[in-house]
Amino acid sequence: MQDEYIKHNKMENYNVKDINLADQGLMNLEVAERNMQALVKMREDLKERKPFEGLKIGMALHVTKETGVLVRTLQAGGAEVAIASCNPLSTQDDIAAALAKEGVSVHGYKGENNEDYYKYLENVINIKPHITIDDGCDLVTLIHTKYPELMENIIGGCEETTTGVIRLRAMEKDNALKYPIVAVNDNMTKHLMDNYYGTGQSTLDGIIRSSNILFSGKTVVVAGYGDCGKGVSMRARGMGANVIVTEVASFPALQAKMDGFRVMPMNEAAKEGDIFITVTGDRDVITPEHVKLMKSGAILANSGHFDVEIDVKGIEELSKSKRRVRHYFDEYVIENNLNGSEKVIYIAGEGRLVNLASAEGHPSEVMSLSFMGQVSACLYLVENKGQLENKVYQLPDEYDDKIAQAQLEVMNVTIDELTPTQIEYLASWKEGT
Amino acid sequence: MQDEYIKHNKMENYNVKDINLADQGLMNLEVAERNMQALVKMREDLKERKPFEGLKIGMALHVTKETGVLVRTLQAGGAEVAIASCNPLSTQDDIAAALAKEGVSVHGYKGENNEDYYKYLENVINIKPHITIDDGCDLVTLIHTKYPELMENIIGGCEETTTGVIRLRAMEKDNALKYPIVAVNDNMTKHLMDNYYGTGQSTLDGIIRSSNILFSGKTVVVAGYGDCGKGVSMRARGMGANVIVTEVASFPALQAKMDGFRVMPMNEAAKEGDIFITVTGDRDVITPEHVKLMKSGAILANSGHFDVEIDVKGIEELSKSKRRVRHYFDEYVIENNLNGSEKVIYIAGEGRLVNLASAEGHPSEVMSLSFMGQVSACLYLVENKGQLENKVYQLPDEYDDKIAQAQLEVMNVTIDELTPTQIEYLASWKEGT
Amino acid sequence: MQDEYIKHNKMENYNVKDINLADQGLMNLEVAERNMQALVKMREDLKERKPFEGLKIGMALHVTKETGVLVRTLQAGGAEVAIASCNPLSTQDDIAAALAKEGVSVHGYKGENNEDYYKYLENVINIKPHITIDDGCDLVTLIHTKYPELMENIIGGCEETTTGVIRLRAMEKDNALKYPIVAVNDNMTKHLMDNYYGTGQSTLDGIIRSSNILFSGKTVVVAGYGDCGKGVSMRARGMGANVIVTEVASFPALQAKMDGFRVMPMNEAAKEGDIFITVTGDRDVITPEHVKLMKSGAILANSGHFDVEIDVKGIEELSKSKRRVRHYFDEYVIENNLNGSEKVIYIAGEGRLVNLASAEGHPSEVMSLSFMGQVSACLYLVENKGQLENKVYQLPDEYDDKIAQAQLEVMNVTIDELTPTQIEYLASWKEGT
Amino acid sequence: MQDEYIKHNKMENYNVKDINLADQGLMNLEVAERNMQALVKMREDLKERKPFEGLKIGMALHVTKETGVLVRTLQAGGAEVAIASCNPLSTQDDIAAALAKEGVSVHGYKGENNEDYYKYLENVINIKPHITIDDGCDLVTLIHTKYPELMENIIGGCEETTTGVIRLRAMEKDNALKYPIVAVNDNMTKHLMDNYYGTGQSTLDGIIRSSNILFSGKTVVVAGYGDCGKGVSMRARGMGANVIVTEVASFPALQAKMDGFRVMPMNEAAKEGDIFITVTGDRDVITPEHVKLMKSGAILANSGHFDVEIDVKGIEELSKSKRRVRHYFDEYVIENNLNGSEKVIYIAGEGRLVNLASAEGHPSEVMSLSFMGQVSACLYLVENKGQLENKVYQLPDEYDDKIAQAQLEVMNVTIDELTPTQIEYLASWKEGT
Repeated sequence: MQDEYIKHNKMENYNVKDINLADQGLMNLEVAERNMQALVKMREDLKERKPFEGLKIGMALHVTKETGVLVRTLQAGGAEVAIASCNPLSTQDDIAAALAKEGVSVHGYKGENNEDYYKYLENVINIKPHITIDDGCDLVTLIHTKYPELMENIIGGCEETTTGVIRLRAMEKDNALKYPIVAVNDNMTKHLMDNYYGTGQSTLDGIIRSSNILFSGKTVVVAGYGDCGKGVSMRARGMGANVIVTEVASFPALQAKMDGFRVMPMNEAAKEGDIFITVTGDRDVITPEHVKLMKSGAILANSGHFDVEIDVKGIEELSKSKRRVRHYFDEYVIENNLNGSEKVIYIAGEGRLVNLASAEGHPSEVMSLSFMGQVSACLYLVENKGQLENKVYQLPDEYDDKIAQAQLEVMNVTIDELTPTQIEYLASWKEGT
Repeated sequence: MQDEYIKHNKMENYNVKDINLADQGLMNLEVAERNMQALVKMREDLKERKPFEGLKIGMALHVTKETGVLVRTLQAGGAEVAIASCNPLSTQDDIAAALAKEGVSVHGYKGENNEDYYKYLENVINIKPHITIDDGCDLVTLIHTKYPELMENIIGGCEETTTGVIRLRAMEKDNALKYPIVAVNDNMTKHLMDNYYGTGQSTLDGIIRSSNILFSGKTVVVAGYGDCGKGVSMRARGMGANVIVTEVASFPALQAKMDGFRVMPMNEAAKEGDIFITVTGDRDVITPEHVKLMKSGAILANSGHFDVEIDVKGIEELSKSKRRVRHYFDEYVIENNLNGSEKVIYIAGEGRLVNLASAEGHPSEVMSLSFMGQVSACLYLVENKGQLENKVYQLPDEYDDKIAQAQLEVMNVTIDELTPTQIEYLASWKEGT
Repeated sequence: MQDEYIKHNKMENYNVKDINLADQGLMNLEVAERNMQALVKMREDLKERKPFEGLKIGMALHVTKETGVLVRTLQAGGAEVAIASCNPLSTQDDIAAALAKEGVSVHGYKGENNEDYYKYLENVINIKPHITIDDGCDLVTLIHTKYPELMENIIGGCEETTTGVIRLRAMEKDNALKYPIVAVNDNMTKHLMDNYYGTGQSTLDGIIRSSNILFSGKTVVVAGYGDCGKGVSMRARGMGANVIVTEVASFPALQAKMDGFRVMPMNEAAKEGDIFITVTGDRDVITPEHVKLMKSGAILANSGHFDVEIDVKGIEELSKSKRRVRHYFDEYVIENNLNGSEKVIYIAGEGRLVNLASAEGHPSEVMSLSFMGQVSACLYLVENKGQLENKVYQLPDEYDDKIAQAQLEVMNVTIDELTPTQIEYLASWKEGT
Repeated sequence: MQDEYIKHNKMENYNVKDINLADQGLMNLEVAERNMQALVKMREDLKERKPFEGLKIGMALHVTKETGVLVRTLQAGGAEVAIASCNPLSTQDDIAAALAKEGVSVHGYKGENNEDYYKYLENVINIKPHITIDDGCDLVTLIHTKYPELMENIIGGCEETTTGVIRLRAMEKDNALKYPIVAVNDNMTKHLMDNYYGTGQSTLDGIIRSSNILFSGKTVVVAGYGDCGKGVSMRARGMGANVIVTEVASFPALQAKMDGFRVMPMNEAAKEGDIFITVTGDRDVITPEHVKLMKSGAILANSGHFDVEIDVKGIEELSKSKRRVRHYFDEYVIENNLNGSEKVIYIAGEGRLVNLASAEGHPSEVMSLSFMGQVSACLYLVENKGQLENKVYQLPDEYDDKIAQAQLEVMNVTIDELTPTQIEYLASWKEGT
């Protein structure tokens, strides 16, 4: 396999849609870097130190302009990088082309089929990575199930997203995890930034690009009130919508209620919503039964990692016909149980994460924070090589501090410093009323 | 000229980019109609009554899916319609194709040059319209200056936008206006809806599609705090930005301040802004002098009707180089006066209305309200034919009531009704403390 | 009567609760003046010019610290002022005392009965005013119905509030109005400031002071979506509530819907609301029938001018018992139709304007704007003496400009100025695309 | 000491301002209970089970109507309760009177001096409590430093607030903590509810009641962007203010920036602010040096636990004069360094927590959540008696779940339940793209 990989590598070490898109991709990378200055600064430092010299990093991430900047950063630190897409609809073909042109082993195209999806993951695994970087845990799972022999070579892995971390913790609980993982998602500079501000804006962006719907005056149902759901709800309200939240857990439900939203079960919300957005990390959040209750014209979109939240297949079976009426915007014609007539339901982005399928994913600014976390996690793995257990780790708080500080710096924000008296006061416990 | 027109009409009565886009256009029209139910209902009624039988209506409007629904509505009422674009970057080519296929005399393509722009207006004028519908007053101006002989034929005109109404009132003041105009823009259901909610969302949409910038954490400078500026400011805040407003009039400046925004002159705001949006209706709002003060990476966009608000030409002269880095998103490299290095400024949509140049314009929902106003204005002109002076008219309040009521109906919103006692109370003046 | 008045004037020219409160009142006036700098500046100018020399001004306004500053301003301009309260619960007794001590003929106390209320109005009328200033039109009505002989002496009147203007326009329509009135309420610097920002904050303030309820997580029903209703709705949402709007007119209902609120008839909203706020200007907005539908613990408050919006008497008749549980916060025990048990309904401020009954009314900042309008109106009446018809007038726009400008100045806000080129552009109509 | 206590108990087992206020206090308790239904339900259960039978609970909490409901709840569970105020300005005298009348050993009055403050804490300690409940850690500190002999009797303690937890963790770090403490503050249902929604509303309420200032159009400087600072910032914006945040830590500073606020050091913010609010938990946040930079008319208020955040003494020394102009609202006249003239600075609530000094503290709804946490913590201590170390504990997550669930129930909010398939999906890790 080794030989085959090398041959492949020498000949045409990438699978992209159209290499001619590279020029557009390079410009997009340039624009992205302007909005990722803190990560770019980190790159300058890594270029000096070369902490990843001799290491291979295998990635399954959304192949976007921001990921391209991450790839460049790790390479600057000395790593050899191979990357496959972590979702069939999230590759930006111009970026893939640009990376290919820069010599990266990149595999993915927008709209790739399941077979290619897994073939490309294997292309990445074939480089025998020392570090894996996942968004959704597919690389780790594939290595654990099909390529266990590669694990002795692996220092550790990094996981980008909530869904992936949930899977990894399940693995850890089952004693199935065989190498240490840093849950980058759990950095405050990640899950309180990218999941919240990033998902908030980009989900609306995806829905608007695919439908051109007006949010003002609409009822938007947001399923899930975690970091992503909070971001989406806040932005939907910020655009003039009336938001209903559905939840399965009491505390976030209470938060949603206290934040001024209505909270109810999905089978009630289904009757009221104009736009439905799932961000739960779980399956069957919107089912054909819910669809039966909906108004004609309802739009369904998902921003959770996997395409299981909306039961697209079930809805298709319910439908008389299906038609693509706009870019990744599909119309399903369904019998309207309420009055015998027909009604129409739209699904954006095929039920895959709408911000990537129908727009460009999270803006560069938040991905800069997330990816400083990824680089930090790689450094952490390298620096603690051999000393970590096969567990899911969280980076120590000082990493978050440094990342936040670096970001404030490029934003030209200065803050106060504690005086010695103030530090002393915080450490003392005798001073009372 | 008559003959020539007819010949032209019979042979190839349209100028569009690609007639093969018609299928996509037809689907977009269908989706739009779902969000314009109240206008569609109006069409049903007009189809019965045919109030425009025998009339020719000449339009200069943005050729979007929503305008397409307006065209269909006027045709349903019996009118013959010809339409040219009212802006070089606002035509949606698939819609133009679809209208052409439906037999409409449609003239325009996205990115058309100035020569074509005026040629197409003349194509519309050549049908010898009885009613003109303008968005920006170019048709009225052209008729007044070059085709005065056609005016005896004209019952009246309708104007869609603030800028156009300003021009028309200037004409009226100069006694230059030679036929009556209904200022549709002044309908509450227009300027308090489309200008506010429509411009608010679509301007941000245009900027995000062209730049993929994150609004959260950014400083957004909004020039002008009229209906459009208010909408843009509110939505920018709703997306997490810190908003600065610039104004030339005291009262809106005070409103902006009371709404929690900072208010300052542009030459101060220029130093702080990350994103600049002009919605003033005036020229030279952002000049090269302002650009000199800006931070590197600043993004400029205009949502005012004409491309005079940002002095694009002046900025180009100031620049060392210019390059299109994304769709209608141009990078200007400029010497940075502050530190001798270079800085980069981006202009979205060439300084033309960014919501149409870089996105799809106002969503259908608000255009439904605006265009119910246009149809109402046409009906008003026909019903009051010969009885109006050469002035700018506003529709009586009951039109707004009817439009709002029709919209509430399709949104399934019911409201309270005054009881006789309540009506009596409101009419009495003797009942006090 | 003249003689009697003078005697009364010399002896004890006021009716206040407790003259010993004057010191607190003087301090409150001082604090208020700090927040009414633009009005105070106006006073400096009037002091020089004495435009009201020899004139008597009779007022029926809320006797608050802000009104005190208005009184001082008109006096500085040379006027002799007499004032009665325009609402039984709105007098701040310390301010009344302070004004009395300063020699103003002031009549009112918090909680005054109906008899005193009208007696005090007559005390004001007895000075034979040349100008009347009303808030709610009671003075004008009383003069028209009982003291017509005084009208030949009257130059004109000023009206502060929407409700008063509605009554006056009804009088005008009936040809019953016998002297000219300036509708100060219709100044943009009044109804778009005081009604909106003022009522918004102070209504919530009144409800919180009387109930200490948490707005976050509550459902707030706002009846009426005029300037006041918009302000209240926005602030309720700003405090974390979920807002339902009820309306009788289509356009404001549509605005409320587009602003992201739910809109429904009161008999539906009654079932959902935790807090009900009426700001309609009409009677019977909340009736016993609505109360029957409400949840136990619901709070009712009114911010409209008169206490007719909530049918307090009807609710009392419905109740088994009534008890004052907190400051102007009354508990009504009612049989709960839903389950046979009892429920409790609270009414704040006896159904009178809650911001004055339970808090301190609009903050000084907005009253400064309103009262610059009152002073401007008085100046307008004096300057146009004898030239006005017996109609309801609106001040010309330049007054609003000046007031807004004066306010911006004391807030240290500077704005842009139009260049000659820009002015020319706005006036021209030939420059198009 | 025991004997003395008992004697005292029999004779006059309370120190309150005026026992005649009890009737008003009882009504306030009744109103509070309506908004604390979930806690009241908990009480019903405790009444049955009597888990605190034979236990003495000593409290130092704000003596408010909500605390009164907590006292009743613990008593219902069988406890004997003694309570002192935990802050000199936070006692509501009517509630203290009501509790006294109900036989509670209650000690405190609004405006109590330092001597009484500590005497009252000792009164509580004198009952030889088995459990202590603190808000700010004064009781724990006093026991540790002056009454160590009582500690063998103590099962554990509960701490209500962030500041107290900081002190306790410092004690734990110093190995000075001698009995286990439950950090009730760290419950999500406490610090993400009461600190956020509670402090947000009540801080503004305190400032408005003391100053009657309009928030709309003001610049509000919030020092500290923890849970409290976030709540205050959000509500200040919700009332129309422009908010500046100051911070000493990078991550919350970044959050504030991303939430659309300006972030800068206090010595810059000092020049811009109209209203300053400290919520940091540290001292010297606003110093005389900052005050020198401020505009005349600036208002200073603190919502942190101790009165050290604003250096009130230092500001007094800077001042020419000081005067109380309104209820707990003091004016300081200071030489204005900028122009030689004088300026005025206001301090609300003497720099003590403004929501309690100038208003009524957090509304009942959030205190219900906090105090369900307190009761849960007491139960946890009793159930784990003898098994806990001398550490600061956090309640397990299921307590938060139960509390949130109980609250949702009384709010009539229902949510979705996970299906078996969904539970299985969440637990599995093999199912990928």
